[in-house]
Amino acid sequence: MNRKLVVRVVGLILGIEAICMLPSLIIALITGGEDLLPFCWSVALCALTSFLLLLVRQDSKRLQTRDGFVAVALCWIALSLFGALPYSFWGFSYADAVFETVSGFTTTGATIVAAPSALPRGLQFWRALTQWMGGMGVLVMVLALLPSLGEGSVNLMKAESPGPISSKLRPKTSETAKSLYIIYIVLTVAEMIALCAAGMPVFDSITTAFTTISTGGFSVRDASIAHYGSELINWIIVAFMFVSAVNFGALFQLQRGQWKDALKSEELRLYAFITLGASALIAADLFLKFGKGVYESISEAVFQVVTLMTTTGYATADFDLWPHFSKAVLLLVMFVGGCAGSTAGGVKVSRVVILFKGLRRELRRVLHTREVRPLTLEGARVEEGTVSSVSVFFFAYVVIMVLCAAVVSLDGVGLETSLSAALTTISNVGPGFSLIGPSYNFAFLSVLSKVTLSITMLLGRLEILPLLVLLFPSVWKK
Amino acid sequence: MNRKLVVRVVGLILGIEAICMLPSLIIALITGGEDLLPFCWSVALCALTSFLLLLVRQDSKRLQTRDGFVAVALCWIALSLFGALPYSFWGFSYADAVFETVSGFTTTGATIVAAPSALPRGLQFWRALTQWMGGMGVLVMVLALLPSLGEGSVNLMKAESPGPISSKLRPKTSETAKSLYIIYIVLTVAEMIALCAAGMPVFDSITTAFTTISTGGFSVRDASIAHYGSELINWIIVAFMFVSAVNFGALFQLQRGQWKDALKSEELRLYAFITLGASALIAADLFLKFGKGVYESISEAVFQVVTLMTTTGYATADFDLWPHFSKAVLLLVMFVGGCAGSTAGGVKVSRVVILFKGLRRELRRVLHTREVRPLTLEGARVEEGTVSSVSVFFFAYVVIMVLCAAVVSLDGVGLETSLSAALTTISNVGPGFSLIGPSYNFAFLSVLSKVTLSITMLLGRLEILPLLVLLFPSVWKK
Repeated sequence: MNRKLVVRVVGLILGIEAICMLPSLIIALITGGEDLLPFCWSVALCALTSFLLLLVRQDSKRLQTRDGFVAVALCWIALSLFGALPYSFWGFSYADAVFETVSGFTTTGATIVAAPSALPRGLQFWRALTQWMGGMGVLVMVLALLPSLGEGSVNLMKAESPGPISSKLRPKTSETAKSLYIIYIVLTVAEMIALCAAGMPVFDSITTAFTTISTGGFSVRDASIAHYGSELINWIIVAFMFVSAVNFGALFQLQRGQWKDALKSEELRLYAFITLGASALIAADLFLKFGKGVYESISEAVFQVVTLMTTTGYATADFDLWPHFSKAVLLLVMFVGGCAGSTAGGVKVSRVVILFKGLRRELRRVLHTREVRPLTLEGARVEEGTVSSVSVFFFAYVVIMVLCAAVVSLDGVGLETSLSAALTTISNVGPGFSLIGPSYNFAFLSVLSKVTLSITMLLGRLEILPLLVLLFPSVWKK
Repeated sequence: MNRKLVVRVVGLILGIEAICMLPSLIIALITGGEDLLPFCWSVALCALTSFLLLLVRQDSKRLQTRDGFVAVALCWIALSLFGALPYSFWGFSYADAVFETVSGFTTTGATIVAAPSALPRGLQFWRALTQWMGGMGVLVMVLALLPSLGEGSVNLMKAESPGPISSKLRPKTSETAKSLYIIYIVLTVAEMIALCAAGMPVFDSITTAFTTISTGGFSVRDASIAHYGSELINWIIVAFMFVSAVNFGALFQLQRGQWKDALKSEELRLYAFITLGASALIAADLFLKFGKGVYESISEAVFQVVTLMTTTGYATADFDLWPHFSKAVLLLVMFVGGCAGSTAGGVKVSRVVILFKGLRRELRRVLHTREVRPLTLEGARVEEGTVSSVSVFFFAYVVIMVLCAAVVSLDGVGLETSLSAALTTISNVGPGFSLIGPSYNFAFLSVLSKVTLSITMLLGRLEILPLLVLLFPSVWKK
């Protein structure tokens, strides 16, 4: 492992984190909140650690695949441990603070805060900002800002960006990173303006835009989006959530006017199809079995399907009270998640496509023993290595989910709570069912469960491999 | 498709089914039960249909892979539809009768009968016998009895026997089938004698041996094995359940005195390890949190783990009342199931081994980009085709389970009921949790749920592909 370079990358990231805490510090200063001192201490500690780590001289600039994986894993762990400081200094237990921070950076949105509106403004801002930073990826940000990380920096991007196939939008990694962030910022600003125009307070519009475009789901209001009671705001948020879970490669094509290419995407079509299908099933269920009106059924179904499928995790209705079939459909969309190469979590639609095609090929193999056709996705051939990576990923995803649920069940909670806690964290959604449903929070769980769920969130966001690689002793050798 | 040959095979199978109904008919005759006429009609209908189908002349003897798959799928459907006749004529609705029969042949053991002890003796015997027939496979029986099915009969065996790699014990398919049945019969007789010696009534010993060795789980007593209240009987059954879920290839080696080879099996070791590990975890949980004594904790934990891991499904305790962690562990072992090439269901231990090795290889790929080592199992190289088949199988298994749970949830039952119903049927276990726990049964579910669960049981027993192949239109062309 190229230890020195990895240490420098972690140092850089902590420096960025210190800078990102400054707006919260300023807000705390202006509002005279009790979070001023916590932010001062946190910025100081982050900056100091960053400074010390950056003293290490790098000898070689070459980052290999595994260095990229290790660097990303360590950066995310460092970000979480230091990002928890403001909460912790303000009064959270450190386990709770880490849980809330990991939930932020991984854009999960699971919270231990019963009343986020009671938090000081600076912390509210930091909470939303962690999601925005984590959505597109903090290392992608570094690559966009500092193109000088050298050869092999694509390995950082590979390890941090979600999806089975990492598409290069531009020839240079730093240019790709820049393009991604430009789309990301444009979307965020657009939503901010739309929400303001729809009558949402400015502070709420900014934080909500941060947590929508990153498909995070934290809200500064106790009742989440239901607080505003505005159908217009709901639909604006639905639209932006939906777009944020689309592959940014497709958005890049749209931006360049390549409408046809973008809309031909198999993944995009299936994503839209699942969203519509699930919404229709649930709307019908709500209308027939739950006694809701037609418009209300459709509006609540669409919002909840989109918020869970895009793994955002806002709520405009307590879907835990819905009929069991609707809940089963919601679990399904939480599992699938959004498109690869977006800010959404879950298994990702493109993986589901590849797995279904693998199943079809398996059946074809039985029918015509000799014929072996390669798999294709978006018109291009999918390499066998990718197919087996995707299958193995799916297996690991299920195993981690089940093991996580078993640990949570030690707290004496039922299957609906433990399994939905595991699913909502690995898929980076936010709320679950039963005791962790949209009206409740994760505060009552044991420290063991909180730590396990935090690890599960990181595994979900980084798509498993980077964190598991850390467990191989050979990684730590020079 | 070689239609004529497939039709003949189905005809043969129905003939065998008619013959297998005769013992029940005789029992009904002796006991003067109300099931005499039902069995007379059923035998007549089975025999007549068989006769008509066997009138078809076969032109070619060659059975291709897909013909094998189609024949096996159609045979199992025919067996289920005709095997349901005795129940149906006796008074069950046809949907209930098919559910009970499919549950029998697939060795699931899920039942719609609240009090099996109230069934007439002939039906009780038929219920146990369906499990014994389904355990080793009815087509394997045909192959053992009629070696004349011609070339390609190995394709029947491949489609009916569980496991990612079908091992040939002997050079000829018919000899392999015979060897398998010899082990199967020896085990059954041995258990029968052991149970009789331990004080179980003769009729109970026979039917219990049928349903243990096939890892079926039907019992003639309302309280299942708890009825006998004998620790000796419990441990005898534990031993035979454990052995029945061992790969019959390993048992074949043991029988030939190749102890070392048999005990070196990676699959066998992991199977034993999971059984012991899960038992230990649950025993500890029962002792610490449930206030049971040491011996009671161990004995109940071992019985329930073995019965669910081997996918038998007897019960000596109502594990639905146990602490949530114990229930989570039980769900896990139900999912994994027994060894490949045994009568047990589930994903199978060898598949889990292959998937974990696939994950390890994936991690190694990140660490040393260039090195690609082939996977090995039991010392032999696993072909890439098998690895991808196994991964796709796992994906299909999870998808079917989740979709099945969604359908069951339409009945308004919670996640614990719907998900455990889906899992217990696809893994061919029997009981589940909550409303379908060991103290309850499946009778209250809607017809839609019963049909869905029946299909899920067949998908689980035939390992998915044979039934899905039927959906391809090209199969039905000549």
